[in-house]
Amino acid sequence: MQLYSMKQAVNPQRVRIFAAEKGIALDIIEIDIPGGENLSETYLKINPRGLLPALVLDDGTVLTETVAICRYLESLFPEPNLLGSTAKEQALIEMRQREMEFDGLLPISWIFRNTAAHFKTRPQPGAVPDMEQLPGMAARGQVLTSVWLDRLNECLGQHSYVAGERFTIADITAFCGLGFARWVKISVPDGHTHTKRWLAEMLQRPASKA
Amino acid sequence: MQLYSMKQAVNPQRVRIFAAEKGIALDIIEIDIPGGENLSETYLKINPRGLLPALVLDDGTVLTETVAICRYLESLFPEPNLLGSTAKEQALIEMRQREMEFDGLLPISWIFRNTAAHFKTRPQPGAVPDMEQLPGMAARGQVLTSVWLDRLNECLGQHSYVAGERFTIADITAFCGLGFARWVKISVPDGHTHTKRWLAEMLQRPASKA
Repeated sequence: MQLYSMKQAVNPQRVRIFAAEKGIALDIIEIDIPGGENLSETYLKINPRGLLPALVLDDGTVLTETVAICRYLESLFPEPNLLGSTAKEQALIEMRQREMEFDGLLPISWIFRNTAAHFKTRPQPGAVPDMEQLPGMAARGQVLTSVWLDRLNECLGQHSYVAGERFTIADITAFCGLGFARWVKISVPDGHTHTKRWLAEMLQRPASKA
Repeated sequence: MQLYSMKQAVNPQRVRIFAAEKGIALDIIEIDIPGGENLSETYLKINPRGLLPALVLDDGTVLTETVAICRYLESLFPEPNLLGSTAKEQALIEMRQREMEFDGLLPISWIFRNTAAHFKTRPQPGAVPDMEQLPGMAARGQVLTSVWLDRLNECLGQHSYVAGERFTIADITAFCGLGFARWVKISVPDGHTHTKRWLAEMLQRPASKA
């Protein structure tokens, strides 16, 4: 299986960490997003939406969308379980995972894409028309990211990991979200002791470097 | 199981249709979002994020996030299958489902929330600080929705349903997305014959009224 990825990009990182936690070796193909390689004719043949990551299976099937790729890897390599075992656990993990995406990754991407010089005419990821950056959308992203950070700290005060008492995909999304936040100069606020405790633990996992 | 829902809101509708396709009867509790009931103390005790839908299980567990709720219902009531059977089919359906969410529902919500008079100070859903509407974000939503509609028509020209040759959750998301688009006066463009063929079929499914 080949994974189209970019070392610094948050969504490919989520898949790489997920795979590394399971000990899956992926054949990584690096794509340069700021340089526009994801919008090249060659890459658009793989993923017409121009987004990363993309996983190409041995039969040629292309899977895109981070969580869809992770679910496929979970089916093939069930252990360690990262998406839940019982119906209720699976739902609770998916719920938290999506909270991390919609409340964290998304507003951070609004800040990043609407301020980074590289994306002056491409504030929306992927193969969509050129447009202008919106400073107001970046500002809104700041407000929402702050709400997310507060909730994350509260959540990690209630249980050891994002979705309960064990490590799951929700931790990977939150961990990558905090890394992404550093790109826009947002770090874990001083008083967020629960997040800091959890982050220190995340950084000790070998897969966190993937 | 009790579902906190609002008749006109797109995400509760997705869950109601999903349940109706499986013949699951849910005890529906109506919440008035424009009236701010989702931000009341009572509702925030159920879902602190202030979002709909929320499914309350018989043991008191609260599940939020549309797709997490749908996955729970699929586990309990596996037939008819709406999330895929094999690892690959599950991944492909999840991929298309997420495309419909991120490329369709999300930009349509940007238009709706940043123009509707009811949401003048609440352009972001749920329990987040009041803020101003951003006309530029609504305009960006228009551009992205147009891209989504073109891709949807192309997708439905390649196979009978959004994720292949059978009805799945991806069709429900796309169908609800087109309904949501009508709220912001966007309808299926005249030349989109594939989408029109599929939409006519969707409207004939009894569950589409749920």
